[in-house]
Amino acid sequence: MKIAIDAMGGDYAPGEVVKGSIVAAREYGVDIALVGPRQKIEPELARYDCSGVNIEVVHTDQYLVEGEHPAYALRQKRQASILVATKLVRDGKAAAVVGAGPTGGVVASALGVLGTVEGISRPVVGGAFLGFAPNTIMMDLGGNIDCRPDQLLDFAIVGTVFARKMLNIDNPSVALLSVGAEEGKGNEVVRESYPLFQKCGLNFIGNVEGYDILSGRANVIICDGFVGNIMVKFVEALGKTICRWLEERLKDKLPENDVSEIVGSLLRITNVADAAGGGPLWAVNGVSCVAHGRSRANEITKTIGQAKLAVELDLVGALKAELATARNKLNMPTYQS
Amino acid sequence: MKIAIDAMGGDYAPGEVVKGSIVAAREYGVDIALVGPRQKIEPELARYDCSGVNIEVVHTDQYLVEGEHPAYALRQKRQASILVATKLVRDGKAAAVVGAGPTGGVVASALGVLGTVEGISRPVVGGAFLGFAPNTIMMDLGGNIDCRPDQLLDFAIVGTVFARKMLNIDNPSVALLSVGAEEGKGNEVVRESYPLFQKCGLNFIGNVEGYDILSGRANVIICDGFVGNIMVKFVEALGKTICRWLEERLKDKLPENDVSEIVGSLLRITNVADAAGGGPLWAVNGVSCVAHGRSRANEITKTIGQAKLAVELDLVGALKAELATARNKLNMPTYQS
Repeated sequence: MKIAIDAMGGDYAPGEVVKGSIVAAREYGVDIALVGPRQKIEPELARYDCSGVNIEVVHTDQYLVEGEHPAYALRQKRQASILVATKLVRDGKAAAVVGAGPTGGVVASALGVLGTVEGISRPVVGGAFLGFAPNTIMMDLGGNIDCRPDQLLDFAIVGTVFARKMLNIDNPSVALLSVGAEEGKGNEVVRESYPLFQKCGLNFIGNVEGYDILSGRANVIICDGFVGNIMVKFVEALGKTICRWLEERLKDKLPENDVSEIVGSLLRITNVADAAGGGPLWAVNGVSCVAHGRSRANEITKTIGQAKLAVELDLVGALKAELATARNKLNMPTYQS
Repeated sequence: MKIAIDAMGGDYAPGEVVKGSIVAAREYGVDIALVGPRQKIEPELARYDCSGVNIEVVHTDQYLVEGEHPAYALRQKRQASILVATKLVRDGKAAAVVGAGPTGGVVASALGVLGTVEGISRPVVGGAFLGFAPNTIMMDLGGNIDCRPDQLLDFAIVGTVFARKMLNIDNPSVALLSVGAEEGKGNEVVRESYPLFQKCGLNFIGNVEGYDILSGRANVIICDGFVGNIMVKFVEALGKTICRWLEERLKDKLPENDVSEIVGSLLRITNVADAAGGGPLWAVNGVSCVAHGRSRANEITKTIGQAKLAVELDLVGALKAELATARNKLNMPTYQS
């Protein structure tokens, strides 16, 4: 399996990207295509032992830089490394693409080159939210701001496939995030979504409230990207703030090792996305994985591992099948070709 | 100043309510009218030294019980203690009313008997959200689920009066909670609200994101009650969960006193509403304060203190004046009589 990497993606490109790719090639037994300027990539490759791994450089001079508007820049830079890397997937020359930002560039390339699975118009962002509830994922976390009920249903289908394939949960429970458990509770979109969710054949357990994000009651919690984005930014900031506060409180009371162990654990629990590295852009018609812009080699390696897993588990095929089943139950048009 | 208390409100009524009222009468120098069944209240009063304080019992046999639908129950029980207590305010026999739940009963009584200030249709719920940002309040936290832009503006006006009067901030900064700082970012309601906020004469600083709830950038953060309710339930549950986790991690490493001091502080920081006791129902046309259903005497006392403060600061008058000013700037109808 070959995986295409945007060698120029992220804050520490190309150095950390190249380093992480070599480790991934060895660890996961994948071939790697590093896309970017040969003159920048090859000196980095030369610093490591690359024996026994299959790494090629796909040359292009262009790449996105931080601060550009990604979609606009991609229209100017038709040979940008993230675009070229994504086209390798479209053309069957790579099984997946990995980019470490700017996130907008990875998303715009995936949308423009691979498109989305039929019937879903934009990538869905989601995943485990808090280490206290490792079997609970939330969707959408910011890809889709104003949502219709049928979009929330799409997120639920994506989440069900996610939980089944990546968390190994047989029959994931699905809930709508709301302000009360009863059917009539919630804003207009949630109230309209409820009967749709009841009929779609997913394991819908009703509404859950804010505290249920931690309780593990549902495996898949659905919200629009407005709520999800606010929540994810809030919890990451809160986690960091509590960690700083705690460090200050503990530093004169406990040995340094104990403090950093406790604070480090809490940071991982509250900043799950950072801890997990990157993941697939859901609903893209192909495997495109995005890592944080501030990824170091270790996160790049992990994200390449996620890309390999997404290919092996056939996440895209599984999602299409699940969408067709749900739409069939609702007598909605089945887009699957 | 006389304050009317629903002696039968909350999980520990009438015992804790009576006890807390006596302390408040002495501490704040207020007169108290305890409303409820004389045969239940008087034995409680007899347990304490009531010399030098002015406490009367206003008898009624009816009161709400936990589990009833408050609005429905109030239609059956026209002499319910919370209704009778609220009418004392309407009739000028008391300056404020305090009830410890069910919250729906306090709200329904306030709405039915006192009404809201003109132009606002429902009470606004809000206040300080996290101890890390004591000068940042959020509104609405659950009173109003689907909101129009002009409702969000009302919350901003309420929040400005709140911050000015109760936090002593001269010119409180106001922001819309959104998914990006730029004007075009957000869901439809936020995008439509932005230009309205710019013109209203408040100290509007634009959009803030999830992490800014902690950063103290804005004094007043505005969201609809759907988002606010989910956030407030989430953060309270998260605070409690982190406290339990931390207690487990520290109990073998630190003396018991240190553990409970650290965990207790963190709980107060993350459960601000619990720590603060109750507060006024904003936008009600009169002072009605609600305390948690699980309030003990101490919280009852504090809530009575808040009620006294709300009367002294003339929160209702200040809100009406601020509403008139903002509406004048927007050329909107001025409802103030």
